[in-house]
Amino acid sequence: MFYLIGLGLGDAKDITVRGLEIIKKCDKVLLEGYTSILTVGKEALEEYYGRPLILADRELCESNIDDTLKEAKIKNIALLVVGDPLGATTHTDMLLRAKQFGVESQIIHNASIMNAVSCCGLQLYSFGETISIPFWTESWKPDSFFEKILENYSRNLHTLCLLDIKVKEPTEESLTKKVRQYMDPKFMTVRDAALQLVQIIDKKPDAGLTRESLAVGLSRVGAPDQRIALMTLEKMLDLDLGPPLHSLVIPASKLHPLEIDYLEQFK
Amino acid sequence: MFYLIGLGLGDAKDITVRGLEIIKKCDKVLLEGYTSILTVGKEALEEYYGRPLILADRELCESNIDDTLKEAKIKNIALLVVGDPLGATTHTDMLLRAKQFGVESQIIHNASIMNAVSCCGLQLYSFGETISIPFWTESWKPDSFFEKILENYSRNLHTLCLLDIKVKEPTEESLTKKVRQYMDPKFMTVRDAALQLVQIIDKKPDAGLTRESLAVGLSRVGAPDQRIALMTLEKMLDLDLGPPLHSLVIPASKLHPLEIDYLEQFK
Repeated sequence: MFYLIGLGLGDAKDITVRGLEIIKKCDKVLLEGYTSILTVGKEALEEYYGRPLILADRELCESNIDDTLKEAKIKNIALLVVGDPLGATTHTDMLLRAKQFGVESQIIHNASIMNAVSCCGLQLYSFGETISIPFWTESWKPDSFFEKILENYSRNLHTLCLLDIKVKEPTEESLTKKVRQYMDPKFMTVRDAALQLVQIIDKKPDAGLTRESLAVGLSRVGAPDQRIALMTLEKMLDLDLGPPLHSLVIPASKLHPLEIDYLEQFK
Repeated sequence: MFYLIGLGLGDAKDITVRGLEIIKKCDKVLLEGYTSILTVGKEALEEYYGRPLILADRELCESNIDDTLKEAKIKNIALLVVGDPLGATTHTDMLLRAKQFGVESQIIHNASIMNAVSCCGLQLYSFGETISIPFWTESWKPDSFFEKILENYSRNLHTLCLLDIKVKEPTEESLTKKVRQYMDPKFMTVRDAALQLVQIIDKKPDAGLTRESLAVGLSRVGAPDQRIALMTLEKMLDLDLGPPLHSLVIPASKLHPLEIDYLEQFK
């Protein structure tokens, strides 16, 4: 059996009881480490589970997972994923491959930022399409996500912005070489995201959003040191919400009275 | 301390380890029983936790919660909520009241249908606004949710439709009386929802959705007997997905190849 197990958002104890029981009985347990991270590292999880974990990077998950899946025909193998296991496309693809190999699989759900974002007081059913903000480079500054924010905004919906994560990304120079070299891990902060947004806004003064528009910055949602801050995008350029992961919300223009009351505490 | 603890979606073991530890140390534990239900009942949870639970109905949660919250100033009190605790507005309101009374609170997140719906293979970031479909009565047949489905559809986004739940709802006749009488619990099925949708569609032939449009029916997501079915709304009128809870998804018109491959297994 192949198990995809969600770890939730905080630390080792945010796994479900069912998930923990499965980890303990599995023959092999992999930890997916590039679509998201926990505030605690691999070692803390290994200590809590009392067993070693195999770190599964992008190469293993996207190109070399077949051997592991085939092994799950006769063994119990789990892949641990931060948040909910089906947040990323890669994991849906794995389940399809498992099926092709005749391997049964089971999903153990958990909280993800897609629902835990409600901790800021904005109602989940008032969120529109979720978007991702990628790190810009010198030569690559995509801004199509901004149109989606505007579409949500024009329908009076909030937008959850997932911020880019670069873990074990090959350097551009090494892409064509035999031996890959990797960049240092990089996590987009709320400030990074606000900076990119403000640059787009400056070029589109009639878009509806301005430097004075309110935004909600969130860091380490679900962890004891979670932080939430409500302020203008302009002010967010000076905000430091601490270690990763960060997320950003662009709220709808008209909020529910309860949303206003709740957000007030994060001013 | 006042704890809001999410129970997840399946049975007793879908609580997180952290949530279970808190339940065990609390002085009083309430189970919210009207915004959602687990496939297992209160008794199964009591047996698993080894302690009695106080059933918290709508009246307690919406009108009579203040005494409980004030009690949490000196005691540890938990309210258990199926799914994630902040799915419903009521619970956000409770946290605000707790704050007014000077009571600290903590949220223990868990999976909710808002993220676990990804088990059907449709990608979470391609969902638009979530809508609720209410039970129609003889004289009350609202259809504003349909416009929201169409708006998502026109932007090529999926729509998650949460289906109505009636638990301990006062009968209309007893609303003005001193002694309330209650209706039997009622859970909207995927078939009920399809029936209402088809009635709206028949009146709006140019809306873009037809009786032949595809829909995904889900029941008991996260439980071992979870079921998922992909078919036209017309065919869904004859579908029985078993016991509650049910949810419905109206997929976008153009799907990602991986979404198509994954959905295929539910035909």
